[in-house]
This record gives sequence, C-alpha cells and structure tokens, in this order.
Amino acid sequence: MFLVEWRMIRELVILELVRDDLKKVEEKMRSISAGAYAPLAEAFLQLLASGGKRLRPALALGGYGLFRRKSDASAVALAAAVETLHNATLVHDDLIDGSLMRRGGITLNAVWDKGATVLAGDYLFARAAGFAAETGNIRVVQLFADTLRIICEGELRQHFSSRQWLQDRESYYSRIFAKTASLFAAATSSAAMLAGASAAQEQALYAYGRHLGTAFQIVDDVLDYTGDESVLGKPVGGDLRQGIVTLPFFYYLQTLSDPSKVVDQLDSALKQNGNGVAEIVASVRISGAIQRALSEARGLADQARADLESLPRGPYLEALAELPEFVVARRA
Amino acid sequence: MFLVEWRMIRELVILELVRDDLKKVEEKMRSISAGAYAPLAEAFLQLLASGGKRLRPALALGGYGLFRRKSDASAVALAAAVETLHNATLVHDDLIDGSLMRRGGITLNAVWDKGATVLAGDYLFARAAGFAAETGNIRVVQLFADTLRIICEGELRQHFSSRQWLQDRESYYSRIFAKTASLFAAATSSAAMLAGASAAQEQALYAYGRHLGTAFQIVDDVLDYTGDESVLGKPVGGDLRQGIVTLPFFYYLQTLSDPSKVVDQLDSALKQNGNGVAEIVASVRISGAIQRALSEARGLADQARADLESLPRGPYLEALAELPEFVVARRA
Repeated sequence: MFLVEWRMIRELVILELVRDDLKKVEEKMRSISAGAYAPLAEAFLQLLASGGKRLRPALALGGYGLFRRKSDASAVALAAAVETLHNATLVHDDLIDGSLMRRGGITLNAVWDKGATVLAGDYLFARAAGFAAETGNIRVVQLFADTLRIICEGELRQHFSSRQWLQDRESYYSRIFAKTASLFAAATSSAAMLAGASAAQEQALYAYGRHLGTAFQIVDDVLDYTGDESVLGKPVGGDLRQGIVTLPFFYYLQTLSDPSKVVDQLDSALKQNGNGVAEIVASVRISGAIQRALSEARGLADQARADLESLPRGPYLEALAELPEFVVARRA
Repeated sequence: MFLVEWRMIRELVILELVRDDLKKVEEKMRSISAGAYAPLAEAFLQLLASGGKRLRPALALGGYGLFRRKSDASAVALAAAVETLHNATLVHDDLIDGSLMRRGGITLNAVWDKGATVLAGDYLFARAAGFAAETGNIRVVQLFADTLRIICEGELRQHFSSRQWLQDRESYYSRIFAKTASLFAAATSSAAMLAGASAAQEQALYAYGRHLGTAFQIVDDVLDYTGDESVLGKPVGGDLRQGIVTLPFFYYLQTLSDPSKVVDQLDSALKQNGNGVAEIVASVRISGAIQRALSEARGLADQARADLESLPRGPYLEALAELPEFVVARRA
C-alpha cells in the first residue's frame, strides 16, 4: 500500500464533489465502535483515524452521483460497506504478512495477538455485510459476497504461489483482479445498481472500476520497486521479500537469457534474511521492465476513461474521468 | 464440541422430516468447492465430510416447514447459509485455539498454515453471505450480518477474559448467547421471515432458538467436565485448560468458602502444562455444580418448548418440540 501525497488528494475533483457524503461515511464507520466491546471499539477508531485515501467509497459515491445528483442514506451505506470490507481484508492481510506498519501507523496485528486480530477482522466483515444489507438491495449484497469470495480466493492463490518465481502473466493479472480490481469494480457497478441505472450502464461502470483498479495495482507494484522509501513509509522490494511476483519482476525475467540464475540468487537472498534483495531490485529498476509495466498501466487507464463514454455527462463524469490519470501518475 | 451418538440422531424426527432438503443443503455446500481453487476445494470437501450433526440447518428447514410444508430453493439457501457460517466460525476458532482435532477428524489448522487458514475461513464467510443473499430476503441478510457481529464480539470477549476466573453469571450467559444461541435463534427466526410468518411468530421462533441454543451450550459445557473422553474424542477439562469459565466452574466456586485457593491452584496448574487440572475437574464433578448447571439447562429447554405453543400445529411443530429434550439428555 502507499501514502498519497496530501496535496494531490486535495486536488482530486471527486473528493471535493463527494466531500459531505464522505463525512457521513466516516461517521457511519465510526458508529461501528459505538456500543462495541471496548478494546475492539478503541482499536477500530485507531484504524479509522489512520485513514487511507477513501478512494473506494469516493468511487461508490461518484458512481451514484452520475445518476442521482443528490446522495442518500443507501449510497452512504454502500460506500461504508466498500470501505469497511476493504479494511477487514487489510486487518487479515497484515496478520498473514506479519506487517507491523500501515499508512504510517502501527497495525492491529502489532498490538493484538493472532486470535484477537482474526476476530477483529471477522467483526469488520460482519459490519461490512450489515452496511451492504442497509442498502436494501439484494443484488448489491450478492455482488459484495461474490467480491469477498474473489478476494479471498485470490489471496489464497498468492499465498500458495509464494516464491514460485516463474509464473505466467495471466496469473499476475488474475491475482490483481482478485486483490484490488474486483472491489473497485464492485464499488462502481453496485452504485449503478443502487441508482437504478441500466444494465449497460452497470456494465460500463464495472469495466471502468476493473480497469482503474488494475492500473492502480500495477502502479502499486511498480512503486514497490521505484518508490521513495521515506514517502512509501516502508523499504522497497517488499513484494520480492514476501515471495510475490509482480509485473516488473515478470518483465525483468523476460529480459534475461537465463532467468534461473536470478531465481537462485533470490532464493538464497531470502534464506539470508533478504540480504541481496536490494541488488535484484536495483537490476529490475534499470531493466526497462518498469517502463513496460507502467505502459500497461497507462493502457488500462485509457480503457477506464473510454469505459465512461456512454455514461451521463456532467461534473461526476468529469471527476471520474480524472482518476485514471491520477492513478498512474502518483509517486507514492 | 461433541459427537452425537448416531443412534440418537437417527431417531430425531426433525432429521427424518427434512431429510431430502438436508441432502440438497449438503449438495449446495459441496458446490462451494466446484470451480474453487483446488487446494481450497479439497480442504472444504474434507471439512464437509467430517460432518457434524447438521442441527442448525435442520432448525432452519424445520422452522420453514411450520409455515410452508413444501420446501423450496430459498429455504435450502437459508439452511446452507446457516451451516456455512457455522463452519466458517469453527475454522477460525480452531486456528485461534490451536485445536488440531474436531469431530474426530483433523482440523484445517492442523494441515494449513495460519495465513491460509484465516483466508479459508474468510472464504467460507463469503460463501455464507452469498447463500444468505440467495434467499432474496434483505431482512434475512441483515439478521445474518448481525449474528456474525454478535458471534465475533462474543469470541473477542471470551478471548480477552481468558483466565479471569472470577466472572459473574451474566458474563457467562452473554458469552454463550453470542457463541451459540444467537445462530440457533437466527436459523429459526429467519425461517419464519422467509416463510412470510407474522412478527409474533418470528419472535416466538427467535425465543425458541435462543432458549434451545443456550441449553445446548450449557450441556456442552457440562460435558466438558463429565463426558466420556472416548466418546467426546478429546480430554475433559478443555475449557479450564483454555482459561474459559463455564457454568459448572462458576457454581463450583460458589460452593467454596475461599475460591481464591482453587484459583491459585488453577493458575499454577496452567503454568505447568495443565498438570493438576484433572484434580480440579474431579472436584467440580462431585460438587453439585453439575446438577445445578443441568437444572438450568432443563429450565431453558422447558422455555423452548413453551415458546412453540402459539405456532401452527402439525408434524414440524412436534419435531421441533422434541429437540429441547434431546439437547439436555445427550451424553456427548
């Protein structure tokens, strides 16, 4: 994950447009802690305070705004469901990866034991499901359940394919669809469902969310190689250290006549607490693989913009059309 | 948990009445593995094969049968949602408790690492939510989400109150409502919702499920002291070893003029790998606490039977009326 530069976030039109509703989403999410078991309530308030950029709920609210200028309680519930589901998966991911920091703050996993952290994530899944049900739309609930299924299955595939360095490009794309793009697509298309848009409009917003989310994740994966550690708030090369193959590494291996040498080098680096990973990261950075990956992200961003063409014109469409460029241009 | 004697299960009228539908529920649950990531599919088929008595889905189907003799796809989806949710919570519980055996088989936790087990449980939550949505009833989905929230919160309370030996009776009852009775009540009352029963009928079935589930859990907790290890498939005294106070121990402490002696004895037993727990279990067994706990379970079973009084008469009502007695009379 990454920290977006604050200046950049402030300038995103979508965040201005849905600012009041995002406040309601925050309030709704904070209400999770009201009446909850005290240690859980406190942990959850900290999780919320550590923020994140709220891109996913903004997508849901923005998608809804395309069809109904005035938001309502069901759109706020939808956006809260999306963001709560996202946070639930992060709680479990941090536990699984043993991550102690996220968004510049400490993770739940750093302060609670394994059991409590598992249960806290489960609790957030329950609240996300409750928010989804609050939309009153059974198709939205079904899409949420499907999305969670896809996310978990993708995480399992990633988990079991750890350190399998020679994967095909297709596996990478399936994994990032599952991990990231599926929830972006659920956010945008469920907004269309809820707003009573046509099936074609739903599909267009699904495609937009999917392309945008895929581009977003590729850039995330690129930043894991090229990012500034002080801005990222974590050392680069984290994916390699965790045994995860992403697009930059995939293309880097393609530039080599004998990839098995690098694979051996990597395996022995990981056996020695990661000593030597930095050299491989440096090789990937100068290999041209980064440019290739970024060029694919740009292609997906173009597709995301094109997906919007048939949708109702106006400020919401313009705001959504600006996001693909933001997603590929970000530095952290 | 426990293994019910097979003979006893066979004689339960409810299981006879809903036998065909239970087969459809099994099929539906087996369908979870179709198309799923192969290791997950295999693990889930094993989980299903290890069975359990399917009391919760039978309650959902039985509740539905009270109002609509002929079952349908939505009732089967409901029953599958209940049982899948139950299994999801067991996968995480076994991980948290480090349990390697359940229902005479090995747990997922015994063969998969922590990360994969967390994700497999999450995956089952997703499928349970999907089945709940398949009922097409948003109130059912809302109740499911609420129930999962209650279960997680209860597990967290139990987790954080481990080895706090001097708890009040109320804490015990809140915990077992959360842990067990809430899902029993969700199964029976959501069946009423789905069948279009009146609000009063819904409430009656909620009360029935709640009283039945509470009695069930008290008996479970009693069997942890009095059960036959060869039938239980695990050593007695498991709750004490995990630092969990249940009703028998609560009443045992009440018989003592100075409970702090036993508490100290227990704390030092747990520091020595549980050596000495068996002596405390033996003292609880002969203290009269068991009889007091069982007498409360019987009272709750009577209430469960009484909750049925206003509901439509017929074979389903008779079958449901038989369960409270079964629940308190079981030996394992």
